[in-house]
Amino acid sequence: MYIGIDLGGTNIKAGVVDESGKILYKDARPTGAHRPADEILKDMAELAMDTVKNAGLTLDDIKSVGVGSPGSVDAENGILMYAGNINFENVPVCEKITKYTGKPSYLGNDANVAALAEYYAQDKEMECFMAVTLGTGVGGGIVMNGKLFTGTNGVAAEIGHMVTHAGGRACTCGRHGCWEAYASVSALIRQTKESLAEDNTSLMYEMVGGNLENVGGKTAFDAAKKGDRAAQKVVTNYINNVSIGIVNLINILQPDMIVIGGAISKEGDYLLNPIQEYCIHESFKQGKKRTELKIARLGNDAGLIGAAFLGK
Amino acid sequence: MYIGIDLGGTNIKAGVVDESGKILYKDARPTGAHRPADEILKDMAELAMDTVKNAGLTLDDIKSVGVGSPGSVDAENGILMYAGNINFENVPVCEKITKYTGKPSYLGNDANVAALAEYYAQDKEMECFMAVTLGTGVGGGIVMNGKLFTGTNGVAAEIGHMVTHAGGRACTCGRHGCWEAYASVSALIRQTKESLAEDNTSLMYEMVGGNLENVGGKTAFDAAKKGDRAAQKVVTNYINNVSIGIVNLINILQPDMIVIGGAISKEGDYLLNPIQEYCIHESFKQGKKRTELKIARLGNDAGLIGAAFLGK
Repeated sequence: MYIGIDLGGTNIKAGVVDESGKILYKDARPTGAHRPADEILKDMAELAMDTVKNAGLTLDDIKSVGVGSPGSVDAENGILMYAGNINFENVPVCEKITKYTGKPSYLGNDANVAALAEYYAQDKEMECFMAVTLGTGVGGGIVMNGKLFTGTNGVAAEIGHMVTHAGGRACTCGRHGCWEAYASVSALIRQTKESLAEDNTSLMYEMVGGNLENVGGKTAFDAAKKGDRAAQKVVTNYINNVSIGIVNLINILQPDMIVIGGAISKEGDYLLNPIQEYCIHESFKQGKKRTELKIARLGNDAGLIGAAFLGK
Repeated sequence: MYIGIDLGGTNIKAGVVDESGKILYKDARPTGAHRPADEILKDMAELAMDTVKNAGLTLDDIKSVGVGSPGSVDAENGILMYAGNINFENVPVCEKITKYTGKPSYLGNDANVAALAEYYAQDKEMECFMAVTLGTGVGGGIVMNGKLFTGTNGVAAEIGHMVTHAGGRACTCGRHGCWEAYASVSALIRQTKESLAEDNTSLMYEMVGGNLENVGGKTAFDAAKKGDRAAQKVVTNYINNVSIGIVNLINILQPDMIVIGGAISKEGDYLLNPIQEYCIHESFKQGKKRTELKIARLGNDAGLIGAAFLGK
């Protein structure tokens, strides 16, 4: 059994996870992101040990503790180098967690560990597996032969910061035209608002009561499914932009499988089918085998399970 | 000792390569690309066995024969699935080469095996190494822990067919805005010609004697080094386009090292320095370690040596 801790800007989640990825017990508490790192780490360890007790177990049943965190991690040394939204800078997370729990501990980037969880959820061995998260940003993770691949410095798989639209929109990372600026939920909301600003006769306009502040990541998808032309145009354009990046990843790595997670992935086949269609037409000429594309399985638990699996 | 065969559209090259990557003897003959596959394969085997004799060795000294080929290969089964410029389609290359030589044989894509040779030429162990070839097209190879990484179907590392300029120029692969259409020698020649068509007062115009047909991949670089403004603009724009793709690869894989080969790489530091500068500014926020960028070492021999090393 493993403990997984998902450190977020709003909440800390912790849970006990068995060898198969089943969560035996989980709990959460507010992060209090304004507090010093040490207080937050103490809370994380406390919550972790409580979940063990509440699962009817003792620390003897636990092999290790894994932490998934936003930002840039130095996994080798267990140090959170930088995470903007919780003001952590060069914090020795593993050292502290091991001090409080007495267990070996591991640290990984949250999008990376989510990929690890999704890999194990597929329950088959693959040489190269990727997860793409279409959320506020576009994140991801690469799993090679069952282990997280994080590159020479621990920060690989920043796939959202691949430029697909050279000279395009400014991205938070400093580049222009990053995939994230076209394929994230934030990008979809922006594209939906742009459409509404141009045309106030669409169903979308009605759905948000004429108030652009009510536009969400589902607005265009919901209206498109009801036949609204303007919404269909927004969705088609958005899915094309998602697909461009996915085909790029396929042409570079030809992974065995890519799973698509994050808020937008709830659209299921309505999202997946056109992406698959696009990939068949655009991905590089190849042999009999193609990268399998699927919607991610684990939803919000992927981060917690993946963190636990860092010790696997 | 290994035999390496580099099968090209114009010439077949073969050589005997030792464990360290040194070529003991090499030779070449015309491919005769219009001929049936079997004739070409027989010639390849003959040339290979001749090089062994001319190196003062016998087949007993040879462990294996490796073939590097353009196109899409099924390395697992030793089949050249498709190579346009030599009209090979589903040819069992390894079966034939083994039949003629009596040696185990291996098959790889030419850009991939060149990457393998460049990896070994660095003489240090790396988890992830990439080679980028700026030639007629943009090719590449990925080496993971000393082995070629070719994805689920053998055709990974088609890095030139990553879209960096969505909606941009049509590419031979069917996509629009591929990196190759902006960062290859062909792209540079096109960009140079475009500049000359706009402005016939530049030094470049003088250098080509006013004839756009004389423009080559070196024209803009040569004129830029002599201070020609128009040429400097072409070169800066070209190097930016090269850098966009390199930073993409870094943000996705954070390899230990990327080497840049192909015709343009002969520009050396004049090419490399601005790319390095660009990468420092644009690659994703990270730890102390950065991807090392270098000019490739082996030039035209990389294909032959890498093919030989398939058996390593």
